[in-house]
Amino acid sequence: MTALANGWLAVAGLGPGDEQLVTPEVRSALDAATDVIGYFPYIARVAPRDGLALHGSDNRVELDRAAHALQLAAAGARVVIVSSGDPGVFAMASALFEALEGRPDLIDLDIRILPGITAMLAASARAGAPLGHDFCAINLSDNLKPWALVERRLRLAAQADFAMGFYNPRSASRPYQFAQALEILRQECEPDRLITFARAVTTPDERISTVTLAEATPEMADMRTVVIVGNSATKRLGRFVYTPRRAD
Amino acid sequence: MTALANGWLAVAGLGPGDEQLVTPEVRSALDAATDVIGYFPYIARVAPRDGLALHGSDNRVELDRAAHALQLAAAGARVVIVSSGDPGVFAMASALFEALEGRPDLIDLDIRILPGITAMLAASARAGAPLGHDFCAINLSDNLKPWALVERRLRLAAQADFAMGFYNPRSASRPYQFAQALEILRQECEPDRLITFARAVTTPDERISTVTLAEATPEMADMRTVVIVGNSATKRLGRFVYTPRRAD
Repeated sequence: MTALANGWLAVAGLGPGDEQLVTPEVRSALDAATDVIGYFPYIARVAPRDGLALHGSDNRVELDRAAHALQLAAAGARVVIVSSGDPGVFAMASALFEALEGRPDLIDLDIRILPGITAMLAASARAGAPLGHDFCAINLSDNLKPWALVERRLRLAAQADFAMGFYNPRSASRPYQFAQALEILRQECEPDRLITFARAVTTPDERISTVTLAEATPEMADMRTVVIVGNSATKRLGRFVYTPRRAD
Repeated sequence: MTALANGWLAVAGLGPGDEQLVTPEVRSALDAATDVIGYFPYIARVAPRDGLALHGSDNRVELDRAAHALQLAAAGARVVIVSSGDPGVFAMASALFEALEGRPDLIDLDIRILPGITAMLAASARAGAPLGHDFCAINLSDNLKPWALVERRLRLAAQADFAMGFYNPRSASRPYQFAQALEILRQECEPDRLITFARAVTTPDERISTVTLAEATPEMADMRTVVIVGNSATKRLGRFVYTPRRAD
């Protein structure tokens, strides 16, 4: 099948939850789409209208979803795959390219990645500026990588004195990972290192709290939480947490 | 001076350049502001209107700018400090909190940080998905930290096999840093590691190119460039560059 000239595919970031954080670029793509594809809770954020087909699917079927989107766009549809946050950060953009590798006939399709506000940066903004210096982002899920690699990255990141953002710290199927991550941090960092737990950031369920590493427990994170670990200079200032720009 | 009840201060991210990437939240804050403060080129992105004072200032006066904003908001003004990208990523949010440390009398002021699309993630989206796995962000400027710390972070990040985004890779006053960063990468990474240079991303001057580490030269970056270094699995796929979700 050769792609029809007028079909296109956008992978769009809806941001962390608040509609006020959806970029006009993403809004325009949704307005122009004939088909929107994504995980059910993200599809639920798209307003139904005539001429728009909404294709919700379950979690963990990213490759099927991407292949479906390619198929539709190749047939002439205007397709948006919706991600939460930013599609390029632990979301659908890489899955789309993995699927595209299996369809070299579609390499010339009109494909665009539309950035969004990723949860880690929304959480940082709500807390103050804990990522205001060099930082890293680590997906704590070991669905697609060995846990040993996560451990290694955690240790090296702590030794580099990066601030850190953790995605997918804990889920029903992986309850132990975050406990182990805390253990590694306790070996590498001082006990008063600040850790911010940001749950369901920018939604009505938002809950943000900051504790020291000594006070942190695994139960403080769930699957809707991003965790931000400050660097060695991160400090509290009233209700805020921030990392100074200067470092020694 | 005690803060007047109706004054507020928002530190807002304008994104990398394209107005279609400015969030509605930021747009609303600008519409409600009496005063907008920032570096001249960012102030130039704000439409003048009756009742709005635009306060442009030069680079490298972040603390003065933040103190000025606090002063105005404390006197009852509705103030927006504009940053490019995301204010929490190598931008004005941390500078604001540094200034606030010197003004404990203003700690109860209504202060909000409004996230934006940071250059690294906009660049990643334009290129494909090179940051689609664990990654770090490093400011290569040594204005506010010793170069030895930058070197150390680069080495550890490469050993952790993070993808990396570099901000401020090179400027007229610091022409040598990026050459040294490339040298460190050549010591730690294989020669066919992919590096994307994204200049003036999402603006009319945008220029994006991807080369191997062996091909990369210092002149490929300037002060308007963000540099994205893939991890060991990052690959080309047609005109795109992406990092698979899976790692060994």
